[in-house]
Amino acid sequence: MSRTDRFTITYQISAESGGLAEKIADRIRVEQTVEMPPDTVPEQAASSFAEILSLQKQEEGIWNASISFPFSNVGDDITQFLNVLYGNISLLEGIKILDVDDSLFKKLFSGPVYGIDGLRKSLNAYDRPLSCTALKPIGLTTSDLAGLAYQFARGGIDIIKDDHGLADQITAPFKERVISCVRAVRKGEQISGKKTLYFPNITTSPTKVLDRFRQAAALGADGVLIAPQLTGLEAVRDITDEKCLPVMAHPAFSGSYIMHQNYGISAGLYFGKLWRALGADAIIFPNASGRFGFTHEICLRMHQQMTKPFCNFRKSFPTPAGGIHLKTVPSMKELYGNDTLFLIGGNLYQQKEGIEAASKQFQQTLENSNEQI
Amino acid sequence: MSRTDRFTITYQISAESGGLAEKIADRIRVEQTVEMPPDTVPEQAASSFAEILSLQKQEEGIWNASISFPFSNVGDDITQFLNVLYGNISLLEGIKILDVDDSLFKKLFSGPVYGIDGLRKSLNAYDRPLSCTALKPIGLTTSDLAGLAYQFARGGIDIIKDDHGLADQITAPFKERVISCVRAVRKGEQISGKKTLYFPNITTSPTKVLDRFRQAAALGADGVLIAPQLTGLEAVRDITDEKCLPVMAHPAFSGSYIMHQNYGISAGLYFGKLWRALGADAIIFPNASGRFGFTHEICLRMHQQMTKPFCNFRKSFPTPAGGIHLKTVPSMKELYGNDTLFLIGGNLYQQKEGIEAASKQFQQTLENSNEQI
Repeated sequence: MSRTDRFTITYQISAESGGLAEKIADRIRVEQTVEMPPDTVPEQAASSFAEILSLQKQEEGIWNASISFPFSNVGDDITQFLNVLYGNISLLEGIKILDVDDSLFKKLFSGPVYGIDGLRKSLNAYDRPLSCTALKPIGLTTSDLAGLAYQFARGGIDIIKDDHGLADQITAPFKERVISCVRAVRKGEQISGKKTLYFPNITTSPTKVLDRFRQAAALGADGVLIAPQLTGLEAVRDITDEKCLPVMAHPAFSGSYIMHQNYGISAGLYFGKLWRALGADAIIFPNASGRFGFTHEICLRMHQQMTKPFCNFRKSFPTPAGGIHLKTVPSMKELYGNDTLFLIGGNLYQQKEGIEAASKQFQQTLENSNEQI
Repeated sequence: MSRTDRFTITYQISAESGGLAEKIADRIRVEQTVEMPPDTVPEQAASSFAEILSLQKQEEGIWNASISFPFSNVGDDITQFLNVLYGNISLLEGIKILDVDDSLFKKLFSGPVYGIDGLRKSLNAYDRPLSCTALKPIGLTTSDLAGLAYQFARGGIDIIKDDHGLADQITAPFKERVISCVRAVRKGEQISGKKTLYFPNITTSPTKVLDRFRQAAALGADGVLIAPQLTGLEAVRDITDEKCLPVMAHPAFSGSYIMHQNYGISAGLYFGKLWRALGADAIIFPNASGRFGFTHEICLRMHQQMTKPFCNFRKSFPTPAGGIHLKTVPSMKELYGNDTLFLIGGNLYQQKEGIEAASKQFQQTLENSNEQI
């Protein structure tokens, strides 16, 4: 079978010896394809096997393996690709997926519909980072939340999203909340004189998320928030296929895949390539030096994966979040650059001068592109 | 707020000191509810906070915390419950979820529609374990797979499922495969004189899985296979709500949640309680001493969780899989008891006397309940 019929996955294997690393690579070759003793595979399915292209020692106990798979094992099915990527081997220790070659992404995915350029255009905001905040906390009524949305919009925030814990609770039911917050944001825009986008959280049962997306669009939302690992990953592609609203992806429930050094999926591949390929226009990730344990190096790698040339896909807006403060925005801007959507939640609520003033200050810090504050 | 308005989650916290364990418990209390600095939470949302009920040292470096949450944070939404359970804290190290109290499951879930009793009834097989096998490998044509299904059915296997890698590939497209395999199984039953059930794999994009389930039912399948972590977990509940076919759940892509001692979700809670509550009639889990790294102790605990009294839910059929051999069935029967669905894939294909004879032997071993072989 020629190389164009196959794609390659790169794995990091933790093993005490080269022999054991080989065994694990061979295990992947079988487990993620025919899943039966190789000598029982009939001739007509022999081309289904993966093939080990290389196995190289990186450092003591760590090996990298490149293994190629036939596209025909996947078909046109993204969910089946995820199964080939990490189905059964998620149950094995010592295997971490580092990369998948672009040919796979090109074949199955189409990337963001809007991306960085689309979001910039709808906000008429070029040459600066964008701002984002969250309506919270859970337990507030629709009218409380709409009141907050109004203040943030008066302050000129670029994107206001629901907290990812706002679902369809009785305190602020989805439909009522979207109607009121859209109205509040439109009202606030009249004061600020600038555009503000409102993204309600549509995360719900996998089979119902598309309906909730359509409902958000019909009610006048400017985009949506979704937690792909809760709805099932391919749901992102399905809603972006509707091509009517930008999608911001939230990392809830996904930490198990990306938090471990020797296990799971690399954060750059998972958030940076996979979620971008699925079509997330903005991707929230846990910021270094915030509440979560990511290093600056990992964060920068994710940022880079979301914005560098990749299969002609549009760029996803890297959206660092978690523990960003008004005071740290200048240094974060320095670190990540203009193509960044900064999400500040809690710290805007902490400012003594109130939400509208804090939002203005946040916005101003981002607009002063060439100054150090 | 009274206790009946709240439910409790039990966490295992890894921490070097009691002080640090307290800090982490407090972090959970805030992160999984209001997700903002506590002093910024307005009075009207104060009841949204979780509450630490206890924090007890288990051994050096390990603490158990019981934390209660208001039901109102969840509403009626299972996906939002998963978010409260493990949304943001999936991004933190050193937290493992051990248990959730039954009140939550009672309120939101309804368990299997068929369960052990329903599957036994449709097979007219009481007082013995059941047998299961898989059609494989990927790459075979529909006619090859139907040929295998015919042989397994002649041999009297109780349940024949698709390999979880059979999706909608061109070699054996879903619709064509279901039609042919149903027909082959019905033909095989005429030879064996006993019932055999065929469960095609419906795992696909979250927004399309319900349609594929309905298609399977319309084409005469006797049940379905689904990988809940690929479709999104609540999809299982949505398809069982249709109440027309039993559902077997496959652990692909779920290992990241349950493979770690100090991190993730305990396997007993995840497979045993959560998947049972979602409505899986049979739950495949990686068998000890097979290809995956589970201990007998963990496997027995999962088995127990699937079959013991739990919220008046029907029992899920525990389905150990991975490396079970014809020869080890008697000892596995001894270990797990009659309420077990043994899944043998590869080893049936390895038997020299052929699939039909191997299936008969498998079946006979299970039917000879009171003999040691």
